Amino acid sequence: MHTIGLDIGGTTIKGGLVDRNGRVLRSAARPTDASDIGKLVGTLENLVGHLSRNDPVGAVGVGVPGLRSSDTGETVVSPNVACLAGVNVEAVLGDRVAPPVVSRNDADMSAWGELCAGAGIGTRYMVCLTLGTGVGSGIILGGRLYNGSRGYASEAGHLVVDPEGLPCSCGSRGCLEAVASATGIVALARAWLGPGEREAVPEPWTAAGLYEAARAGHKASRTVFEQAGRYLGIACASLINVLNPEAIVLAGGVMEAGDLILAPAVREARLRAFDASFGACRIVRAKLGTDAGVVGAALFAAHVAG
Amino acid sequence: MHTIGLDIGGTTIKGGLVDRNGRVLRSAARPTDASDIGKLVGTLENLVGHLSRNDPVGAVGVGVPGLRSSDTGETVVSPNVACLAGVNVEAVLGDRVAPPVVSRNDADMSAWGELCAGAGIGTRYMVCLTLGTGVGSGIILGGRLYNGSRGYASEAGHLVVDPEGLPCSCGSRGCLEAVASATGIVALARAWLGPGEREAVPEPWTAAGLYEAARAGHKASRTVFEQAGRYLGIACASLINVLNPEAIVLAGGVMEAGDLILAPAVREARLRAFDASFGACRIVRAKLGTDAGVVGAALFAAHVAG
Repeated sequence: MHTIGLDIGGTTIKGGLVDRNGRVLRSAARPTDASDIGKLVGTLENLVGHLSRNDPVGAVGVGVPGLRSSDTGETVVSPNVACLAGVNVEAVLGDRVAPPVVSRNDADMSAWGELCAGAGIGTRYMVCLTLGTGVGSGIILGGRLYNGSRGYASEAGHLVVDPEGLPCSCGSRGCLEAVASATGIVALARAWLGPGEREAVPEPWTAAGLYEAARAGHKASRTVFEQAGRYLGIACASLINVLNPEAIVLAGGVMEAGDLILAPAVREARLRAFDASFGACRIVRAKLGTDAGVVGAALFAAHVAG
Repeated sequence: MHTIGLDIGGTTIKGGLVDRNGRVLRSAARPTDASDIGKLVGTLENLVGHLSRNDPVGAVGVGVPGLRSSDTGETVVSPNVACLAGVNVEAVLGDRVAPPVVSRNDADMSAWGELCAGAGIGTRYMVCLTLGTGVGSGIILGGRLYNGSRGYASEAGHLVVDPEGLPCSCGSRGCLEAVASATGIVALARAWLGPGEREAVPEPWTAAGLYEAARAGHKASRTVFEQAGRYLGIACASLINVLNPEAIVLAGGVMEAGDLILAPAVREARLRAFDASFGACRIVRAKLGTDAGVVGAALFAAHVAG
């Protein structure tokens, strides 16, 4: 039976009816009401009805941004969708729709999607880093989503890659997110580009704009992506040395920069990780694009519901 | 039934007959012959005979330094005991002694000891860092030793904590081991202590000598331990954010410096890790001292042999 995946983002809730192979059969999107949990849950319920069209659906999976307690199922804190704090999405939505509902962290769901239907197929030990506005991550160990003792694990976006580096939204500094997310790349550029180098980048600066400038031959913008790539490679080396995964899958809008960021990342990881461990791990781009969260949530729901 | 634990170190092989509670009933030590695998295995066999005194023994556990392949059971590389490369210790020793033999990485065995009979009792998610000449680590997830896809995991001594930091024996730079092992602390001091600050530390410099100087009021030596502690805290924060453990247990000779290194480590980890994850994790000193490897190997053998 098909399942539904829902992916709650900071501005948009995406949903899809997905088959067992991870193919999206129908999809829909609604704006996120980040301040009103009643409306937000209503939107989720509405999406389930819309996507199922009253056909039987095996289960619903929801990717929820923020830290989720595995003890209570509640979201402890969700910086971008504040109304989720203290809410157990699977319980609240489960009361409103017929199929069983399961929820996990949104980055975990994306990782599950890449594992089952994307760049991680065939692996059982995999890390997926999603480099977007922030850096989310999901970790698969022994074929299972790893959540840690309380559910707070797999925040690899907050591996420290430069102890005196740029400040991070989490309160630390030099986290991977602070220097290799889309926001981090812009911050790196603001810190690095000299007076004569700034004109080539159109305001307001974005990671995409910097990428276009780099592609057009702007050396300073290129250096920013190389440095972000080096930081990404440092994080990969640490993950390889600690977790010995078979694959690190790199997703998110930042990876649209392709080899400009991927090549220095792989080079740096090779320099720093143990040879045996590096050799056992491929570092590759994700395959599911912006569907990863929806596909992963649907396939995870199918997995849990049996 | 009692079990035997053997711990192969760079200079000494330690062994013990251990009861189910982790109490060492008999112990013995022999020099390590790092260049002759035949002699080394002979020493292991001799220790098993000596410790068992022909009484029945349930199983033998061996802590082996270096990377161990979980596919073949062979040690892939062992910088300090070179003759172990390519050797499957549990197979070779298993042919020579009556009880079943199991081997794992030495730092994994120490972690298992602390889990079952030391500072990690009661936890199921734990990281043990052993700060000695190098920095070994063992990771317990869900009550089980975590070894990764090929057995190379849990090299947390090679988390990068300072990308432009001191060179590490592994070929990278700024690894935890390069700045917070006994060797790393001496290297930090050589890089940091000014001309007028060097006389207070007796040659040849050791971490223990620097600690004595710090205790006697030598400010520059104190600063070295504080900086090493900060690096240790950065590694702890990364481990907390990625793994969400219940405890990080700090072992090894370096931790004899007590609060001089522990206090800045805890402070730095609190500053950098997510509050919810930090709050779920205690950072504590190990309890088993230099027996951890022997006790852990014996208890792990008991665990595997059932």
